[in-house]
Amino acid sequence: MTDSAPPEDAAHAPVALDAMGGDRAPGVVVDGAVEACRRGDGPILLVGDRERVEAELGRHKADDLPIEVRHAGEVIGMAENPGRAARTKRDSSMHVGFGLVKSGEACAFVSAGNSGAMMAVGLLVLRRVPRCDRPAIATSLPTRDGHTVLLDLGANVECRASHLVQFAMMGAAYAAIELKNPRPTVGLLSNGSEPSKGTETLREAHRLLNMTDLKYLGYVEGRSLPLGEADVVVTDGFVGNVVLKLSEGIALALVERVRRQLEGDWLGTLGAPLFKRAMRRLRDELDWESVGGAPLLGLDGIGLVAHGGSSPRAVANAVRRARGYHRVGLVGALRGALEDSGFDEMTSTAELPLTRQSGSHTPEGGS
Amino acid sequence: MTDSAPPEDAAHAPVALDAMGGDRAPGVVVDGAVEACRRGDGPILLVGDRERVEAELGRHKADDLPIEVRHAGEVIGMAENPGRAARTKRDSSMHVGFGLVKSGEACAFVSAGNSGAMMAVGLLVLRRVPRCDRPAIATSLPTRDGHTVLLDLGANVECRASHLVQFAMMGAAYAAIELKNPRPTVGLLSNGSEPSKGTETLREAHRLLNMTDLKYLGYVEGRSLPLGEADVVVTDGFVGNVVLKLSEGIALALVERVRRQLEGDWLGTLGAPLFKRAMRRLRDELDWESVGGAPLLGLDGIGLVAHGGSSPRAVANAVRRARGYHRVGLVGALRGALEDSGFDEMTSTAELPLTRQSGSHTPEGGS
Repeated sequence: MTDSAPPEDAAHAPVALDAMGGDRAPGVVVDGAVEACRRGDGPILLVGDRERVEAELGRHKADDLPIEVRHAGEVIGMAENPGRAARTKRDSSMHVGFGLVKSGEACAFVSAGNSGAMMAVGLLVLRRVPRCDRPAIATSLPTRDGHTVLLDLGANVECRASHLVQFAMMGAAYAAIELKNPRPTVGLLSNGSEPSKGTETLREAHRLLNMTDLKYLGYVEGRSLPLGEADVVVTDGFVGNVVLKLSEGIALALVERVRRQLEGDWLGTLGAPLFKRAMRRLRDELDWESVGGAPLLGLDGIGLVAHGGSSPRAVANAVRRARGYHRVGLVGALRGALEDSGFDEMTSTAELPLTRQSGSHTPEGGS
Repeated sequence: MTDSAPPEDAAHAPVALDAMGGDRAPGVVVDGAVEACRRGDGPILLVGDRERVEAELGRHKADDLPIEVRHAGEVIGMAENPGRAARTKRDSSMHVGFGLVKSGEACAFVSAGNSGAMMAVGLLVLRRVPRCDRPAIATSLPTRDGHTVLLDLGANVECRASHLVQFAMMGAAYAAIELKNPRPTVGLLSNGSEPSKGTETLREAHRLLNMTDLKYLGYVEGRSLPLGEADVVVTDGFVGNVVLKLSEGIALALVERVRRQLEGDWLGTLGAPLFKRAMRRLRDELDWESVGGAPLLGLDGIGLVAHGGSSPRAVANAVRRARGYHRVGLVGALRGALEDSGFDEMTSTAELPLTRQSGSHTPEGGS
């Protein structure tokens, strides 16, 4: 399945949606599917246990909506080992969902379930685009003035320099679409910008990145990310995961501290209603759930991971976003970015140490 | 130099202060020394280029203040390789400063300079307490409800499981003092709590930590840190540095977003002065500079790294804090924590892979 040109019926290509993924599946997911269709973001193929899904659908007056149910006999849980689940639960809602993308019945697959399993099953069913050794999970984080793309968020705990370079290319192609910036800047996350900092693998990635056509800024520190000093920030899946989770936690903690600070001053004054409204708006801005999901970059097809705690609105946004990536030809853009690189040198770095030694089983594929 | 019992004259033991360290040295550091002495936090031994320091002191009416200048002929710059600088610039303000602690003339040494060099010189001059293979830089970060101790912040990019365990013990001893909590909880930073996550080295550290007397909670995710779910969070120096820098950046970015949010609503209304005051207070709370520095845990003496951009107030706070650590016997507490552990098993993990392969030269000492 290639998306080199936007398909004619792209606006109405069905999106497959994992009814069994997420903290409050299938109820919340079904609510999200209904909301999406009601605002014109259908059609949707709801994948999961037919009986349970149809029971949930029954709560809505959904007969006129473009929602079809596709049965899947198994479910992959949040704590399951991704590689093992991918190999053994062949009738999971993820296998069926990605299968619909593979066959062309769906233009994309969205799930709020186990992100590691999403990657493992996606690799198994869709395979990788050429020159992508390791697909990565990416997202767009709010920064002081706009947004920054961050990857990898957890798919690859152990990375070679060549993987980091591929992340950079895919991240830039994604950022061009997501941030509407044809020449996004790229930074490599390190523990300082000085030459004495970093690791061997980071230094090799740095050397290779300087040889690409990317608008590569060099090392960026942790500070740079929320200050938006680069459009794309590249790191391995361990650090990326810590950064993402930390950002969520800090946002929550700070909003709480701000609330307490202001509460002391404003309660009982004319300012109270205004204060409440501003706090609500700030929380919305920082509401990762409403942002709409993290795409798996490097698969030969569109997969999107939504936050496990996604609300129906967030699920609906993820569906809209996934279809959007299909329409603008995200997979084709990634193929192009990786093909243009012509990096034969990258195979020479295969002997370099991994950024981090991992004992966890890596998903199928990758070198 | 041991501090097993608080010295009689602890309240008035001189603190050595690096006049040449920091973004605006020596001027700002001298201002800080004067401020400290004026509020009773002297005496101070100001270490650096005598001519320049005395010129700065001349701007104040400082003759009556308990400030002495100790000359140092060399300066270690922010971008210098720490190991090399430690070995070659033997008359740096850091060498002289730590030397004053070694000889007993000063009870502690404070610098806003190159933190890697602080660790390297500290190791060279003071050496390590027994059973500490790798001293770590720690700090106390504001969380939603209080503070959490985080280490290592950058001294050790590559860590074995045994190092992480030692960080945990030292961190807990430090937290007992800093957070006034005799039984602080300890978490190991990972990319998820599930058994399939993490790395081999983290799993080994996890196994060892479960065998200690520490109130060990297990793996914590990035989210947990700002939500204060553990009193002490342990990680390697690469991740710790990213976390620290990221936290700084997010705080800045969020305060700016809050300001813009509220500005739209409040400008021109009665609420404006109240809003400005609340924003100032929030910025102060998040002002890492005012917090007063990061101690180097595991050296046989007290070293404190202050933020490079420290204001005079922050410098004065760091001096006060450093003397405070001497008074409560921080080094003795660390010795005790490591001695009690009796971990002979830890040497068996020497074959395990490092958390991260580093090409940078490690400071003298450590295995």
